[in-house]
Amino acid sequence: MSLTIKSHFASPTYLSFITKPSRFTGYNAKIRPNSIYHFNPLRLTYYQPKKMQAPVQYSPAPVTKCSLIEPDGGALVDLVVPEGERGAKTIEAESLPKVRLTKIDVEWVHVISEGWANPLKGFMREDEYLQSLHFNSLRLKDGSIVNMSLPIVLAIDDETKERIGSSSHVGLVGPDGDLIAILRSIEIYKHNKEERIARTWGTTAPGLPYVEEVITPAGNWLIGGDLEVLKPIKYNDGLDHYRLSPKQLRKEFDRRNADAVFAFQLRNPVHNGHALLMNDTRRRLLEMGFKNPILLLHPLGGFTKADDVPLDVRMEQHSKVLEDGVLDPETTIVAIFPSPMHYAGPTEVQWHAKARINAGANFYIVGRDPAGMGHPTEKRDLYDPDHGKKVLSMAPGLEKLNILPFRVAAYDIVAKKMAFFDPSRAKDFLFISGTKMRTYARTGENPPDGFMCPGGWEVLVKYYESLQAEEATQQPAPVSS
Amino acid sequence: MSLTIKSHFASPTYLSFITKPSRFTGYNAKIRPNSIYHFNPLRLTYYQPKKMQAPVQYSPAPVTKCSLIEPDGGALVDLVVPEGERGAKTIEAESLPKVRLTKIDVEWVHVISEGWANPLKGFMREDEYLQSLHFNSLRLKDGSIVNMSLPIVLAIDDETKERIGSSSHVGLVGPDGDLIAILRSIEIYKHNKEERIARTWGTTAPGLPYVEEVITPAGNWLIGGDLEVLKPIKYNDGLDHYRLSPKQLRKEFDRRNADAVFAFQLRNPVHNGHALLMNDTRRRLLEMGFKNPILLLHPLGGFTKADDVPLDVRMEQHSKVLEDGVLDPETTIVAIFPSPMHYAGPTEVQWHAKARINAGANFYIVGRDPAGMGHPTEKRDLYDPDHGKKVLSMAPGLEKLNILPFRVAAYDIVAKKMAFFDPSRAKDFLFISGTKMRTYARTGENPPDGFMCPGGWEVLVKYYESLQAEEATQQPAPVSS
Repeated sequence: MSLTIKSHFASPTYLSFITKPSRFTGYNAKIRPNSIYHFNPLRLTYYQPKKMQAPVQYSPAPVTKCSLIEPDGGALVDLVVPEGERGAKTIEAESLPKVRLTKIDVEWVHVISEGWANPLKGFMREDEYLQSLHFNSLRLKDGSIVNMSLPIVLAIDDETKERIGSSSHVGLVGPDGDLIAILRSIEIYKHNKEERIARTWGTTAPGLPYVEEVITPAGNWLIGGDLEVLKPIKYNDGLDHYRLSPKQLRKEFDRRNADAVFAFQLRNPVHNGHALLMNDTRRRLLEMGFKNPILLLHPLGGFTKADDVPLDVRMEQHSKVLEDGVLDPETTIVAIFPSPMHYAGPTEVQWHAKARINAGANFYIVGRDPAGMGHPTEKRDLYDPDHGKKVLSMAPGLEKLNILPFRVAAYDIVAKKMAFFDPSRAKDFLFISGTKMRTYARTGENPPDGFMCPGGWEVLVKYYESLQAEEATQQPAPVSS
Repeated sequence: MSLTIKSHFASPTYLSFITKPSRFTGYNAKIRPNSIYHFNPLRLTYYQPKKMQAPVQYSPAPVTKCSLIEPDGGALVDLVVPEGERGAKTIEAESLPKVRLTKIDVEWVHVISEGWANPLKGFMREDEYLQSLHFNSLRLKDGSIVNMSLPIVLAIDDETKERIGSSSHVGLVGPDGDLIAILRSIEIYKHNKEERIARTWGTTAPGLPYVEEVITPAGNWLIGGDLEVLKPIKYNDGLDHYRLSPKQLRKEFDRRNADAVFAFQLRNPVHNGHALLMNDTRRRLLEMGFKNPILLLHPLGGFTKADDVPLDVRMEQHSKVLEDGVLDPETTIVAIFPSPMHYAGPTEVQWHAKARINAGANFYIVGRDPAGMGHPTEKRDLYDPDHGKKVLSMAPGLEKLNILPFRVAAYDIVAKKMAFFDPSRAKDFLFISGTKMRTYARTGENPPDGFMCPGGWEVLVKYYESLQAEEATQQPAPVSS
């Protein structure tokens, strides 16, 4: 099969843009070094060599690429330094004052560098930070508005600020000490943590996972500037092949002749309710006249809270869901969305949707309480479960994206399967939350038949068994009386 | 002089719109019942009968009015029921479930009814509330965006919600028990106070004046709907003639042939630094080619915190400033902006600016730390003093307004007057904050010569003396040992 680039005119927002060939080289930042499962590739046609004469990521020259939806700002940024310039840039970076990054900072470098946050070209300067915080959007030079609901910022402490002095550029150094990027034309401004937290989460209660992990320990200054990333970010955790960039995803959608792409963001294992919803969405899109809707099953791969199921387990679970035929591999692309998770509800769901625009999805599925969690100190949901989809449907800069609100699926105890909730026989339905599902798996109790495909469930059970085994070995030896 | 309506074409945003005649009848809600100063009219040419054959507010028929800047949404709302329908509407209101308003709720009814919050037609429904909270703006049906940074909402408690039941409309009753308005096609939704506070103020620290006065004691539900106000809101505090509606202000600007209107929002007495700035702004506008720039000196008249100078004292002080010739009455209009104060810094300054668009001002002066205050629990400003003007300059929906950032004025101890701060001789300047000014007046200490006109200063000294006298009489009698 040749790499002919095809055009699709189903969407009025259709526009073409130029991309450059991507580069693959190793990078040693590990996100989950203790993978407990072996690599289990999904049947991703993108990676079936017999279907391709040459892998698209190595296409030798810039190509004009066609897509269903224009990236925010018009053209995808690519902030990775071309291979020929890496030597010189690395030497320059060595000479600059250094800023040490955390693992999560590196995830953001990854996100920005590939254009998920398009048209952002680096960590936010104060003007961008304030617009994000107050308006959930950025106004571009041409007056147009793009969505930007989360501040994507880099914090530094007093000592680092002093070391930077009057330098205009800094070198960014990963947790392992390797040079990762240059941040150019920097601007340093105050990091008012209280205000950032209050405006992003709508609460300042203690116990917000991202706040405790990232913001509380961070410095009192933010440093913005333009990124030049010295080489593509890799995690070497056996999952890098799932980490398709927006450019790669767009190419794959085109290669498959997608005339609609619907994205499903998740950070939990896929159960049959999710599957029902995704399959039903495809059915609806076909009914609307689309000939080839493609599902982007797009688990979040960055920081998640401690009691969420880890990425490698989720990827194995997702692959079982495809193997078991619950989702059709021919019309599904599974890839990792490299962003860290904020658990910031209606504010964060905008980010999740916006990033998928940049990846080429023109339909976005939104469910109950997206990016939500329990209130950290009160016995209630942190966010009104309906606010996410309401806010998303009204958010500035997301007008070009088709929002598909969830129909709530629950376990139908009569039909013994996941089904769309029917309020006229409410007592026949059992709601199984993510927390409840994790409790089942942890306690070894089986969920009702038809809740999840057996292969997928087995992955979860094995994970929780391994966790308990690990915990058992870490118990202190009993003290003899 | 006749009431010929004149057109001005200085601004590209010039548009005409239709207004209806306004109505003046009494209303008994008093904001400051214990006025300690007699009414002291400013020399407001609007109120000089010899210059007018008939007062414009009684103009007998709808007129096409010309202005420098279009109100948000295109045409000013007028939510006061026409006089001929009042009887019937009052009878209907009597029959509806009632919602009791606080004094501050009535201030908001006033604000909404006259179009300060244009195009808002009543207390916010949930869609508007969420857009305001998350985006500081509302998207109109035609896709255009207007600024709306503060949620303008009405809270009710569980009992009231139950009493309303399934009724579509409710009657709004003032603190004194009189029927004020009908709220139509209501929507009741949850009042998540924590989220509202965090997203509006960027903090949830205890001690925020509006939160303590309004939000904390309020009910757990919000009720939105369309307002029909039974008669114009009046306070009968001797200051109602200063409460010009947006429609009246627009007419007055036109009557004066203003080709630029620059608004100055304040909640403090006017000192010579303010005056310098206002006069300098006028000079700059003349230099820019405007022939007749008019200053709208526009003190906020609604709720303010306990240690701010009360409205009647401020109005008397402002009138002295004009009498003493510090500001020119011929090119100045003094009027009261009826909104309550949130002290919400960068979020609130947008509201202050947006409301002045609706009142016909096309230039807005913004200073250091607008709508700011000290952090209620930490020893620092609650907001970065520069954020207000930065946020204002980038705010969605305010593009048509010309923002004029303050040059900082301070007391020049060499020249013995208020002057623009010159960083090259910083040590010659004394910064006198509002708090410092109030301390001077309270302790009877004189501020440096040239800080404020003597007449204006005397008003403040008298106020604080009266306050101390009042406090002294309220001291408990010493207990004999």
